[in-house]
Amino acid sequence: MGRIDKKLAELGIALPSPVAPVATYVPYAIAGNLVFISGQISFSGGVLIKGRLGADMDIEKGQEAARACGLNLLAHLKTACSGDLDRVRRVVKLGAFVCCTPDFVDQPKVANGCSDLMVAVFGETGRHARAAVGAPALPLGAAVEIDGVFEIA
Amino acid sequence: MGRIDKKLAELGIALPSPVAPVATYVPYAIAGNLVFISGQISFSGGVLIKGRLGADMDIEKGQEAARACGLNLLAHLKTACSGDLDRVRRVVKLGAFVCCTPDFVDQPKVANGCSDLMVAVFGETGRHARAAVGAPALPLGAAVEIDGVFEIA
Amino acid sequence: MGRIDKKLAELGIALPSPVAPVATYVPYAIAGNLVFISGQISFSGGVLIKGRLGADMDIEKGQEAARACGLNLLAHLKTACSGDLDRVRRVVKLGAFVCCTPDFVDQPKVANGCSDLMVAVFGETGRHARAAVGAPALPLGAAVEIDGVFEIA
Repeated sequence: MGRIDKKLAELGIALPSPVAPVATYVPYAIAGNLVFISGQISFSGGVLIKGRLGADMDIEKGQEAARACGLNLLAHLKTACSGDLDRVRRVVKLGAFVCCTPDFVDQPKVANGCSDLMVAVFGETGRHARAAVGAPALPLGAAVEIDGVFEIA
Repeated sequence: MGRIDKKLAELGIALPSPVAPVATYVPYAIAGNLVFISGQISFSGGVLIKGRLGADMDIEKGQEAARACGLNLLAHLKTACSGDLDRVRRVVKLGAFVCCTPDFVDQPKVANGCSDLMVAVFGETGRHARAAVGAPALPLGAAVEIDGVFEIA
Repeated sequence: MGRIDKKLAELGIALPSPVAPVATYVPYAIAGNLVFISGQISFSGGVLIKGRLGADMDIEKGQEAARACGLNLLAHLKTACSGDLDRVRRVVKLGAFVCCTPDFVDQPKVANGCSDLMVAVFGETGRHARAAVGAPALPLGAAVEIDGVFEIA
């Protein structure tokens, strides 16, 4: 069992089965040492967390949705690393899209649900650049979608 | 005539003339083996496909708009490869923005217009990571904007 | 004093102090020769330029907001280069998000406030790929958010 797998177990985190893309693309593509992972929507335990921040969803629930995106990113990342998450050198960049009303301004707080997960799992290696913005609508009604760039050995 | 140029001919695809940026940036920048191509809006045959999914445009027309973005990406990619698309090693990542109403949730289906084109042209090499999200408004009223990262030899 | 620092002085530009992230991520992450900088919102002189294009903000003011994002990107880029901006080989890609109404279509003009800055500071090296899209809402009510990818030596 690798160092990061141990950390996941310690945190009581069981990674979900990687979620198949909802369309004709693939979950990730590798170029050199960089893994680009497709935008993951907030599926949690096979159920999509839907909603709109500022309307029918509060920040805490939004953070849960962002964390679900993060778990799906990790599931694909693990596959991209042939099962060995210890090969992850750096969480490089996350792009977070938050479904929200025009007056909602706490996209960063929502996205923290994913960012905090990365730091909990990877420590310093998990500290990443990030953009968090609002979106009027996301695939299938998801509350949050997050894509990522990771550096692996 | 290269392999990919032959494939384009087989598919009956004539690449458009590369569309000049609508502002003070450039169509692409190369860093190492990665080509970053600017967001392409849905110009088709010199005419911009405008509209808003969920309001005045259906999914099929949206897919046509996304395909137009894809053709514009390929036109710039060809220039970036000094005319030789056989140098493309991988379509790495597409970022698709779909102009839509707040209740539209089929951004992935729309973006497939571009994704399917990449796979038709490049085969396995064309399978990419992707994010597809909604946007309240896009440049010049475009229905779709898509940017891309490509790996070249 | 480096070449780019001289250019900044010539242009009368004093870089702001790097703005701390508003959440649990970091301002930038480096992978190989690429620096990924977090989305910078339109803080200018410690004050956030808030607003919505198409409603309470005109294009000129929006360009000022985009330029502020650009200065914040440069401030972090300088830190990423250990203070030596002459190490910048290329401004590779900017991703610009403009808070706007659904009928606003001049995202490119707004984003030029940042793009023009990059070209003014770096010359040819500053010419970059770019995507500019609308967003219904941005962090803390910012008018503009821009992230970036840079190649350094």
